Amino acid sequence: MSIQNQHTQLTIGLFGFGVVGEGLYKTLEQTPGLQAQIKKVCIKHGDKPRNAPYDLFTTNASELLNDQEINVIVELIDDADAAYRIVTTALKRKKAVVSANKKMIAEHIAELILLQETYGAPFLYEAACCASIPVIRNLEEYYDNDLLHSISGIVNGSTNYILTRVFDDKIGFDAALQQAQAEGFAESNPALDVEGTDAVNKLSILLTHAYGIIVPPGEILHTGIQNLSASDAIYAKEKGYVIKLVAQCRKLNNGAIASFVLPQYITNGNQLYNVKNEYNGVVIESNLADKQFFYGKGAGGFPTASAVLSDLSALRYNYRYEYKKLKFQTPPKQADDFYLQLGVSAAEIATIPVHLFDQILEWSSDEHSSRIKGIIHYSKLTETNWWKQAGISVILYPDGILDNFEPKYASIKERKIYGSETFVS
Amino acid sequence: MSIQNQHTQLTIGLFGFGVVGEGLYKTLEQTPGLQAQIKKVCIKHGDKPRNAPYDLFTTNASELLNDQEINVIVELIDDADAAYRIVTTALKRKKAVVSANKKMIAEHIAELILLQETYGAPFLYEAACCASIPVIRNLEEYYDNDLLHSISGIVNGSTNYILTRVFDDKIGFDAALQQAQAEGFAESNPALDVEGTDAVNKLSILLTHAYGIIVPPGEILHTGIQNLSASDAIYAKEKGYVIKLVAQCRKLNNGAIASFVLPQYITNGNQLYNVKNEYNGVVIESNLADKQFFYGKGAGGFPTASAVLSDLSALRYNYRYEYKKLKFQTPPKQADDFYLQLGVSAAEIATIPVHLFDQILEWSSDEHSSRIKGIIHYSKLTETNWWKQAGISVILYPDGILDNFEPKYASIKERKIYGSETFVS
Repeated sequence: MSIQNQHTQLTIGLFGFGVVGEGLYKTLEQTPGLQAQIKKVCIKHGDKPRNAPYDLFTTNASELLNDQEINVIVELIDDADAAYRIVTTALKRKKAVVSANKKMIAEHIAELILLQETYGAPFLYEAACCASIPVIRNLEEYYDNDLLHSISGIVNGSTNYILTRVFDDKIGFDAALQQAQAEGFAESNPALDVEGTDAVNKLSILLTHAYGIIVPPGEILHTGIQNLSASDAIYAKEKGYVIKLVAQCRKLNNGAIASFVLPQYITNGNQLYNVKNEYNGVVIESNLADKQFFYGKGAGGFPTASAVLSDLSALRYNYRYEYKKLKFQTPPKQADDFYLQLGVSAAEIATIPVHLFDQILEWSSDEHSSRIKGIIHYSKLTETNWWKQAGISVILYPDGILDNFEPKYASIKERKIYGSETFVS
Repeated sequence: MSIQNQHTQLTIGLFGFGVVGEGLYKTLEQTPGLQAQIKKVCIKHGDKPRNAPYDLFTTNASELLNDQEINVIVELIDDADAAYRIVTTALKRKKAVVSANKKMIAEHIAELILLQETYGAPFLYEAACCASIPVIRNLEEYYDNDLLHSISGIVNGSTNYILTRVFDDKIGFDAALQQAQAEGFAESNPALDVEGTDAVNKLSILLTHAYGIIVPPGEILHTGIQNLSASDAIYAKEKGYVIKLVAQCRKLNNGAIASFVLPQYITNGNQLYNVKNEYNGVVIESNLADKQFFYGKGAGGFPTASAVLSDLSALRYNYRYEYKKLKFQTPPKQADDFYLQLGVSAAEIATIPVHLFDQILEWSSDEHSSRIKGIIHYSKLTETNWWKQAGISVILYPDGILDNFEPKYASIKERKIYGSETFVS
């Protein structure tokens, strides 16, 4: 059997004509080599002026979905529910689909995989994770075996922009958030970014392609940068750290995968240290390739369009995600038995439930805040939510996943000196 | 026309069973999901003990090349001439080929592209550039249009290891080279790495995939780190720079592509600043994706095997390089009319041909060395070779490609104070 040379001509139905959609349209116009053409664009508001011929547009989704000639649907709209309906309908009609909607994909990935299998239509979404960074394709193509040790990434540009302002410009978190909003790097309701929801959606997608694990984003431990304080930034600087919001997963010695999104102290030796502003960066550690680092713009019209283009290019030679780790192997379990080395700070030491920690390594207190560095079992975070409360911040230390920690119960009594027994979590 | 789901079963004939070859064999054994199997391995020395069944091996190349069932040849031998014979023969027999031999590929790329076209067989070589970093695939799939501004990369691990030792451990160049050899990061004859030959081979391959330019590596301006001195390192540290050997190409305002391999001063803000030891890193700047950075191990058995694996995975869905920028567009010209901002140092100021420079920005001299920072036309380097002589080092400054420089002829006279008129280049 010989290797064939075969290409598919792409006739595209596009949903959405915002920055990404229009960028894609223009680029395809200028790139005849790709053999991909947009036949019709479905938009929400038919009366807006557009930089494209009038008869390219429709407000009727069926015009695209029913068109036999259209063999690719590109979905670039904001509304996750509408995106879900468009994508599932298109797959059922055996059209290839490209989407950038991470929320929709993370929440429905099991069904979307099943639809691809049932109807034989490919579904690509490189743009949903870190936009211009080809991380999904990389995870999908490599690390079939037990080769992948860990992924740790800065996957949300808004929070990274805010953290960069705080560390490089030495301004407060509130001022930095305002600046991010003014520059267009954060939504007017920034909760999705700031509280880690966007990052956990992306981690959920990465887990599927990295390890074959399907887990709804709501079930992954996560918080954002909403509770970080000026005192945290000062502490980090004293120690030579920066703070980053890191989505990560790591294979433990028992084969299970620890995964979560938490703020983390990052040392200068870590590639993530220099990921600044709205950029994203992902470090992948594996047996064969050792350490790889991918860096690029993680959001914005053009970086997203570039990822969509690469998916279209891949469709031309009939590329599809194979979900090999899910289908051909028994995926590893999500880990629930490991320890984290965590910093906790609060205005009052009494609000830190030190009795939940198996070991306290450092503690300090001044007129503004109290702070501990301790070792805590993962379950103490999943079973309680004290650490998400306003006024308390938690930050993971470098190499903060402890796989071999043996708790010393003897230390519990000593901890009483901090008055923790009076605190109910 | 619908998007098809079609895979090719790979039956592999492997040339070479060194670190990469054996690593590949083991990984494929453990990865049934890839549907790729090594049928036969051709080795040079049949009597060495091998960690694989005896009847897998042969010393007769024809056994692999004549086998109708073998549809993929993976070539992982050192000898560039033998590799050329194997690869061309295999392509003529319509077998897909995967190779990691950058020297052979750079020197024969025009013929190898023609063979792929004539016989319809794909030829993939991701491992030939930066091993584990998927840079060729990325360039091939993106930037079809006039979207690609520049590529700058640390593409040779040995020289980067030496430079890291000099800057981080504060040892001399000679000691660093010895250490690199002791650690296995430099050949016993290190000229290929140290003088920039290996880097220029890789740049030649990158130029083809980035811009459709085919140029023999010998015709690309290059030097290595062989003439760098302790005084250069001291100067760099004073200015907050590190020195890296950078392979780069950049689209100028007139559309032509400037390309060369030179040592360069790198600032802390550049992603290449933190590429240390045997790692490689490539910064790609483009319109759509803006700035992307890829980082990983650029050499070694396992990182190379990981790139070969990704090529095999790509062959399964009939992926091939399309050389779109070469075939569907008129490739840009190599630029020959631009200026460089260059530092030159030498033991004697008289050996620096300052009259060739259009502007001298700085000069200094002490008992050990003299040093200038100046602006010189590119042609002054291609037409002469004073700058490659022992005792003279040249180092490009950050942002050292000057596209809009207007020479000030008035300054020529002033330069006579340095005695340059007595020097014949």
